[in-house]
Amino acid sequence: MTGLDDMTHSADSSQRGRRPGDPNETREAILAAARELFTTLGFDKASIRKIAARAQVDPALIPYHCGTKQQLFVAAMRAPINPVDVVAGIADGDLDGLGRRLIEAFLAVWDSPAGNGLALTLQAVLTQEGMTTAIREFATSEIIPIITGKLDGPEPERRLRANLVLSQILGLAVTRYIVKIEPLASASAHEVADRVAPNLQRYLTGPMDKS
Amino acid sequence: MTGLDDMTHSADSSQRGRRPGDPNETREAILAAARELFTTLGFDKASIRKIAARAQVDPALIPYHCGTKQQLFVAAMRAPINPVDVVAGIADGDLDGLGRRLIEAFLAVWDSPAGNGLALTLQAVLTQEGMTTAIREFATSEIIPIITGKLDGPEPERRLRANLVLSQILGLAVTRYIVKIEPLASASAHEVADRVAPNLQRYLTGPMDKS
Repeated sequence: MTGLDDMTHSADSSQRGRRPGDPNETREAILAAARELFTTLGFDKASIRKIAARAQVDPALIPYHCGTKQQLFVAAMRAPINPVDVVAGIADGDLDGLGRRLIEAFLAVWDSPAGNGLALTLQAVLTQEGMTTAIREFATSEIIPIITGKLDGPEPERRLRANLVLSQILGLAVTRYIVKIEPLASASAHEVADRVAPNLQRYLTGPMDKS
Repeated sequence: MTGLDDMTHSADSSQRGRRPGDPNETREAILAAARELFTTLGFDKASIRKIAARAQVDPALIPYHCGTKQQLFVAAMRAPINPVDVVAGIADGDLDGLGRRLIEAFLAVWDSPAGNGLALTLQAVLTQEGMTTAIREFATSEIIPIITGKLDGPEPERRLRANLVLSQILGLAVTRYIVKIEPLASASAHEVADRVAPNLQRYLTGPMDKS
């Protein structure tokens, strides 16, 4: 019976010696392995080494084909835009304007043609068992620190502030781009930014005691 | 061939004459039909009459078994709590305290044992094709008007304000209860209410021009 099982898997086994010079196939194998391990192990524990072993490629090939672990995660989630790049792109500058820069960058990306793909990615990560762990760990280690690094105060307070900003941003993604409730879905980016920026700014730099 | 088809469906046909006095079976048939039609037609177009026809019951039985169309929708979505009841329960009172009452009621319900079921319902409606239409129409016709009815100003402005409140509330549901990002997921309800209430209140009654 074991022999039969081995024969059944012979098609897979023939791919173990992946042909060099077939970069698309290698990249797809890496992304499939990454998707599987990020879902089952989370972002933190799915190491490049484990993903390489699962994809049956040399770990040294992963940076070449898929970049950093962060970039590999974004590609594995089929996200058309890397949210880390978006947040990092507007983090520098005056702290008083950070709320407005965040909402304007968010709206620019989601109102662009990439928005549909981002909505599909968000729907997938919010629903698939295991994905919520991966996205929590990814946000915690890759996105939140970009924001907290700009804020004042003790670490837990800065993290809570950044979490609250994320809650409003994700809530807008859900209501404006997934549920598409009106008039929010059709409001201009300018109008939405004017409404939301002060609330983000209050989370970032407003008083932490009861107000 | 038609005769064969008819015979194939004879098991279904035998249920057309649903036995009186089998309320669980009737209720389940109504809920299954409602789930199907709400998903394919949306909340507005899935009439009680169509749902009754699909479930092969007398339309007059639906209020008896499942209440109003709004209550039928909530039951069909398997939501353990009716969000309309929650919002209606805190809508009355001073307008200046509406933001705080909203966030406190939201947290009380989601922090309760019903929270897990609400998270499952939200995950389902955000992902299933057709469900986003149904939840948009349900929110637009059943929830948003409770809020806008308390606000001042022209109708489109009041709707946008209520939409923005919904965006923050749903964003909290996603980050605190589905993704469970820390420290927001473990923060006390009191702390979260203190942070979020002023932002909800600003959406409800703050200046609409650029601030």
